[in-house]
Amino acid sequence: PLLCKQAGGNRTLDFSVAAVLPAGGSGERMGSATPKQFCQLLQRPLISITLERFERVHWIKEIVVVVSKQNFELMSSIIEHYGHSRAIVVEGALTRHQSIFNGLKAFVVNQSPSSWLEKPEVVIIHDAVRPFVEEDILFRVATAAKEYGAAGAIRPLVSTVVATNAEGYLDHSLERAKYRASEMPQAFTFDIIYRAYQQCTDYDFEYGTECLHLTLKYCGTSAKLIDGPPDLWKVTYKRDLYAAESLIKESLSKSVCIFTGMQKEAVQLGCLLQEALQLMMEVDVLTWSLNKESQCIQAISSGLYYNFIYININNFDLPLEIVQLMELIENAKLSALYPVVVTVVHLNNLETASSCIRMEDFTNIKELAKEAHQKNVLLYRLLINYTQVCEAAQ
Amino acid sequence: PLLCKQAGGNRTLDFSVAAVLPAGGSGERMGSATPKQFCQLLQRPLISITLERFERVHWIKEIVVVVSKQNFELMSSIIEHYGHSRAIVVEGALTRHQSIFNGLKAFVVNQSPSSWLEKPEVVIIHDAVRPFVEEDILFRVATAAKEYGAAGAIRPLVSTVVATNAEGYLDHSLERAKYRASEMPQAFTFDIIYRAYQQCTDYDFEYGTECLHLTLKYCGTSAKLIDGPPDLWKVTYKRDLYAAESLIKESLSKSVCIFTGMQKEAVQLGCLLQEALQLMMEVDVLTWSLNKESQCIQAISSGLYYNFIYININNFDLPLEIVQLMELIENAKLSALYPVVVTVVHLNNLETASSCIRMEDFTNIKELAKEAHQKNVLLYRLLINYTQVCEAAQ
Ligand SMILES: [Mg+2]
Ligand SMILES: [Mg+2]
Repeated sequence: PLLCKQAGGNRTLDFSVAAVLPAGGSGERMGSATPKQFCQLLQRPLISITLERFERVHWIKEIVVVVSKQNFELMSSIIEHYGHSRAIVVEGALTRHQSIFNGLKAFVVNQSPSSWLEKPEVVIIHDAVRPFVEEDILFRVATAAKEYGAAGAIRPLVSTVVATNAEGYLDHSLERAKYRASEMPQAFTFDIIYRAYQQCTDYDFEYGTECLHLTLKYCGTSAKLIDGPPDLWKVTYKRDLYAAESLIKESLSKSVCIFTGMQKEAVQLGCLLQEALQLMMEVDVLTWSLNKESQCIQAISSGLYYNFIYININNFDLPLEIVQLMELIENAKLSALYPVVVTVVHLNNLETASSCIRMEDFTNIKELAKEAHQKNVLLYRLLINYTQVCEAAQ
Repeated sequence: PLLCKQAGGNRTLDFSVAAVLPAGGSGERMGSATPKQFCQLLQRPLISITLERFERVHWIKEIVVVVSKQNFELMSSIIEHYGHSRAIVVEGALTRHQSIFNGLKAFVVNQSPSSWLEKPEVVIIHDAVRPFVEEDILFRVATAAKEYGAAGAIRPLVSTVVATNAEGYLDHSLERAKYRASEMPQAFTFDIIYRAYQQCTDYDFEYGTECLHLTLKYCGTSAKLIDGPPDLWKVTYKRDLYAAESLIKESLSKSVCIFTGMQKEAVQLGCLLQEALQLMMEVDVLTWSLNKESQCIQAISSGLYYNFIYININNFDLPLEIVQLMELIENAKLSALYPVVVTVVHLNNLETASSCIRMEDFTNIKELAKEAHQKNVLLYRLLINYTQVCEAAQ
């Protein structure tokens, strides 16, 4: 349930936490010119998805993104465009470790152009290319870091690890049970990781395996290792982009909000839809209203829904409610993040309607749909002609 | 280029090779009831895709698939349905190693109900859930096994590997450069791997890491390790199924075959399309003909194309050529493996045509499209009304 948690947890921490996201990779392994953190997922750069996940977590303050010099402008424009208000760009260096160190310096007076940032007690380090990070694992590494000085997510090994000899033959296989894959996020008390980097040699900066190793080597801090969920995997190959996009699409399809008018038939259809859909997804049915404390406005602005159905009776002009709904979606900036789908269902009672309605008649909604499409909202119409015995057509 | 290589290489080997595919996994990690080797990719079980890859390789003889008792019937029906003529099902056992051993016994007289199979000199062992295996890596492990007794594909480690102590803290990180992930395929001279399994203890059968380790331990054979391509990865999580499906879709979109009639305009449009499309995909343009040595028939039966365009002029009944094309696709069994897309382009010269043509007029093709859809062929029609100055409509 990726998006279902979007509303964010209510946890609080009694120490301050910030994050550093190294995003300097060159994308060589993808076989593409675009570094993977800038590849598009549903028309949006991967790094923006990762940032959104961090911003859902209220107890993380600043999120420092470290990018190479040539991507500084690009990254700044992404932050601007998607409204990542807690993100700060910092220029990286040649190696991953130097880049992370640059990110940390942003919190240290006189060490960086961005050094107005307040030094946090704990800093989380996470790869920009691991977008599916959730509050739970962030919370667990942060609190473990506060307690033990250093902590990192691990996963069971998927493949057996083998040692090779110089001629390319098998030397020995590792016993899988004793080893783990070290993943992200990792977290450290700020002073420990900063001290480790201050002592790093050029060799460490260039070839050093990872932060956990450096804090062990230079500060004697043995990191607490924490079992992480499988979704933490690193987007490395093109197939990983495909997988990430499918996972996001899947999560966008996990909930729908149905609005109905007051009319009996509309409410009835809403309830029928709920029954039919609730085995597949979360369904909420609300009567349309825009007064104070309206649940409708709350539902739209919660960010829990990217699918909306509006059920309407015998009104084939452009109903005011649809225009209002589209405005609320725009104001909530939902479609800035992901495509939003709005389906307007027109129930047409053939016994009371004055004449036969055809899809061609909905010119006003057609215009609105065109405009909406520009804003990443897909507006569909469905006409149901029915009589008392409830025959559906088109 | 997955499907582009479908026509198969021309390599030959001077020793005999068979394959054993353990397919006994339980699918627990997927969070789904269906074991992953039986999950559907484009409406087809994953194991069938892997089998197809092996059957493209002419120098591999029998392919023994080892499944659990409860999936024996299912596996037999898959082999029947998708026409995997070189595949044989063998019943597995409780552990992966016992299942592989059962697969090997199929080649040994009096050891298995299937023991009429001739013992190969080299046997390839491959996971059923690594569908993107190509001839090149199979060839390299098979020839290395013949020379060294054992060989296996390896990949660089994606994550750092860490050793944990009993309390769940970091003990040390491995130096990545010295270690590799051991992947599949692996290959062995039959006698060496069989001898290793004959000596295995119950502990080995239950907890043994992998075949390469067993042949080292019991036969003193140090396997040759061979760098494999990234596509060998193991379909483990749901996201891997998504990735696999996208990769197959991508490969299906990599080539298109355009057929035209003799008319000048049709050939011209074919060439224009080729120019426009060839930056994105392989495009072949052929004049439709069904005489002996017809390139058209060869193109269809090659298995290189899953997209066909037929360009037709001023003929809005169901042209005979389309019916023939659909029959050839069916005979080549293309759509038994993957969905096939056929687009019929009707060029309508408004100056010479007797009257205005509307899409609604194509009733015959509509009927054909319905039938085709049942057989996994998607038939589309496109009407282009034009005058000398080449205005396109609809
Ligand atoms: Mg690190
Ligand atoms: Mg093995």
